[in-house]
Amino acid sequence: MRDTYILGISMNRFGKYPDSSMPELSYGPIWEAIRDSKIDPHDIDISFVGNAYGGLITGQESMRGQTILREAGIFMKPIINVENACASGSTAFYLAHQAVASGQAKLALAVGVEKLFCDNTGKSLQALSTSSDLEIEGKMGIVFAGIYAMRLRTHAAKYGITTEQMAMVAVKNHDHGALNQHAQHRKRFTMEEVLASRSIVDPITLLMTCPLGDGASACLIGDAESARQMGKRPVRISSTVLGSFGYSWHDSESVTTRVAKQAYHEAGIAPGDIQIAELHDAVAPIELFLYEELGLCEPGKSKDLIDNRDVWFDGRLPINTSGGLTAKGHPAGATGIAQLAEVVWQMRGEAGERQVHPYPDIGMAENGGGNVAGETAAVAMHVLIAE
Amino acid sequence: MRDTYILGISMNRFGKYPDSSMPELSYGPIWEAIRDSKIDPHDIDISFVGNAYGGLITGQESMRGQTILREAGIFMKPIINVENACASGSTAFYLAHQAVASGQAKLALAVGVEKLFCDNTGKSLQALSTSSDLEIEGKMGIVFAGIYAMRLRTHAAKYGITTEQMAMVAVKNHDHGALNQHAQHRKRFTMEEVLASRSIVDPITLLMTCPLGDGASACLIGDAESARQMGKRPVRISSTVLGSFGYSWHDSESVTTRVAKQAYHEAGIAPGDIQIAELHDAVAPIELFLYEELGLCEPGKSKDLIDNRDVWFDGRLPINTSGGLTAKGHPAGATGIAQLAEVVWQMRGEAGERQVHPYPDIGMAENGGGNVAGETAAVAMHVLIAE
Repeated sequence: MRDTYILGISMNRFGKYPDSSMPELSYGPIWEAIRDSKIDPHDIDISFVGNAYGGLITGQESMRGQTILREAGIFMKPIINVENACASGSTAFYLAHQAVASGQAKLALAVGVEKLFCDNTGKSLQALSTSSDLEIEGKMGIVFAGIYAMRLRTHAAKYGITTEQMAMVAVKNHDHGALNQHAQHRKRFTMEEVLASRSIVDPITLLMTCPLGDGASACLIGDAESARQMGKRPVRISSTVLGSFGYSWHDSESVTTRVAKQAYHEAGIAPGDIQIAELHDAVAPIELFLYEELGLCEPGKSKDLIDNRDVWFDGRLPINTSGGLTAKGHPAGATGIAQLAEVVWQMRGEAGERQVHPYPDIGMAENGGGNVAGETAAVAMHVLIAE
Repeated sequence: MRDTYILGISMNRFGKYPDSSMPELSYGPIWEAIRDSKIDPHDIDISFVGNAYGGLITGQESMRGQTILREAGIFMKPIINVENACASGSTAFYLAHQAVASGQAKLALAVGVEKLFCDNTGKSLQALSTSSDLEIEGKMGIVFAGIYAMRLRTHAAKYGITTEQMAMVAVKNHDHGALNQHAQHRKRFTMEEVLASRSIVDPITLLMTCPLGDGASACLIGDAESARQMGKRPVRISSTVLGSFGYSWHDSESVTTRVAKQAYHEAGIAPGDIQIAELHDAVAPIELFLYEELGLCEPGKSKDLIDNRDVWFDGRLPINTSGGLTAKGHPAGATGIAQLAEVVWQMRGEAGERQVHPYPDIGMAENGGGNVAGETAAVAMHVLIAE
């Protein structure tokens, strides 16, 4: 397998676009990624389009990528539609990387897109519920906020994490989001405001959760030769790993930990080498779990990273400088590639007011999707190294 | 890229299974493919699940493959959900082949499944209509039978093809289906019966069209070492190519011809080397087009293949010995892998009453999906060589 590089990457500002279809949402990011990379779009050998809920919300099922790429003017070459719940974009990225790494393609395009706002919020929520097994978890009435709340309460009791510490994760991510012109929410909140906002499931409040949103993202992946020609700092895909749920026993590793260990191993790095990360904070305090599961701190020590402000954009280990899902928004299929866009922009010094200094050289993104058999249905982790 | 082999392949009998969910439909074929291959299922490195319409018909969107493989007991490793309309199964197969060919995986599983029967035929037909761009072709009211009818009438006028010759393709495929225990329809019809059946769109009659159906198929792909261990005749995947629509001009090559030329080239064969083929006869007479587009005969000469009975299972170039989509049925996502099952069974001498003699060494399958911009949205072609 040969080295692969991110040539161009882009996203639109996540938000509410009632008048835009999925092809319309995707058009801008696709062409910005193409312009960013300085490639000729006729040279794209294969395209992967990640989307989770479009069939249920827009009615367009079965070949959504073709309708999207038709409008972007990309055709004749293979187009593959992929789904993996909230990790659909990462799955498109994973396959695009594999296509270039294997030598099958010189240039591969990954697109992530989601349209969650429609004329009926119930329909949107129903679509989101398909990220669990409807015949099992669905019939049990288990919803994501409930799963997160149970995990948080157990973890908090075990390690003495306070609700104030949980709220501070949301404060941090809204602080970052306020600096990001691509973020859906660009407003700062105090810890008191986060805690006083409407309770969703104790201890999760409204300002700790990600909003419903529409959005798209796109990434062009190429080989070392293409990376040399693009004229920006080359960002190499050091490893990209995808894993699934695994019928865990009480003390066995989570799928996230399994996938992370493999990603660090394949990249030849240790968790301590990570200089920047985008994590899947579908509710903000879940970040605390992820610090531990990803080996960014010892078990039970995640609260210290928040207390010491290590994970702010000007801290020792900046996490979710984009605002994360909490503030940047979470149009499911678009999220995985949007996370990578933030890491690449930080590495290239293109992150504006929230720019990390010095520019990070080693970064990662973790993106989870769905719930089945008591675990995350699909987890993707990507390690990027800037040269 | 290294050589890849089909180790195990299976399908259930296509038909109407009102009491079976997609996981239940898939369970049998997955485990038959595993047993056929003599592999340990824990060694499967990656799985690709192709399905086109399940989100709209069953409500389970976004991570269908995880719900299917959960019930089959396959987890922890990457699971990727793919769609490409009626070529979804072929797309899963294409990616599974790439995963093994690139060395990324030693063993890859491809599953195709579809549940088209539900409590409301209108809902099924609505789901099928998502294989065109709903914003463009959909609003124009163009349906597949209409597109096929227009193409057939133009072609028939140009080359003097009679409706009797068109009907004979259906007669052939029903003849073959009657010999196939996996076929949804197992009844022979005379040319007169085909022509006298209800008109769908002139010149297409009911007995020339494929039925609505439920079904599943599965295939395990491995390397040469795994192929040596399985104890059956090794069938190598000589080439597998996927292509998309291309805004054709009047006299330019169709996407099918483009994809076929590339597949022959990569396999190092000429169309005349093909000894058996499964073609995407969504309506039976479309086979005549395909003979020409795939280079199996000269333009305008397809009717001779029917008149001379070359394409019957005991003829010179057996086509759709399974009964094709017309008789075997067409549960969209399951079709691509089911076509390959027939070719493999023929190569291994496992095709029972419809067995071709001598066992074919070089075969192919062509699988089309969807319609966009006046062309097929996704076309897959696979060349298999038995060793």
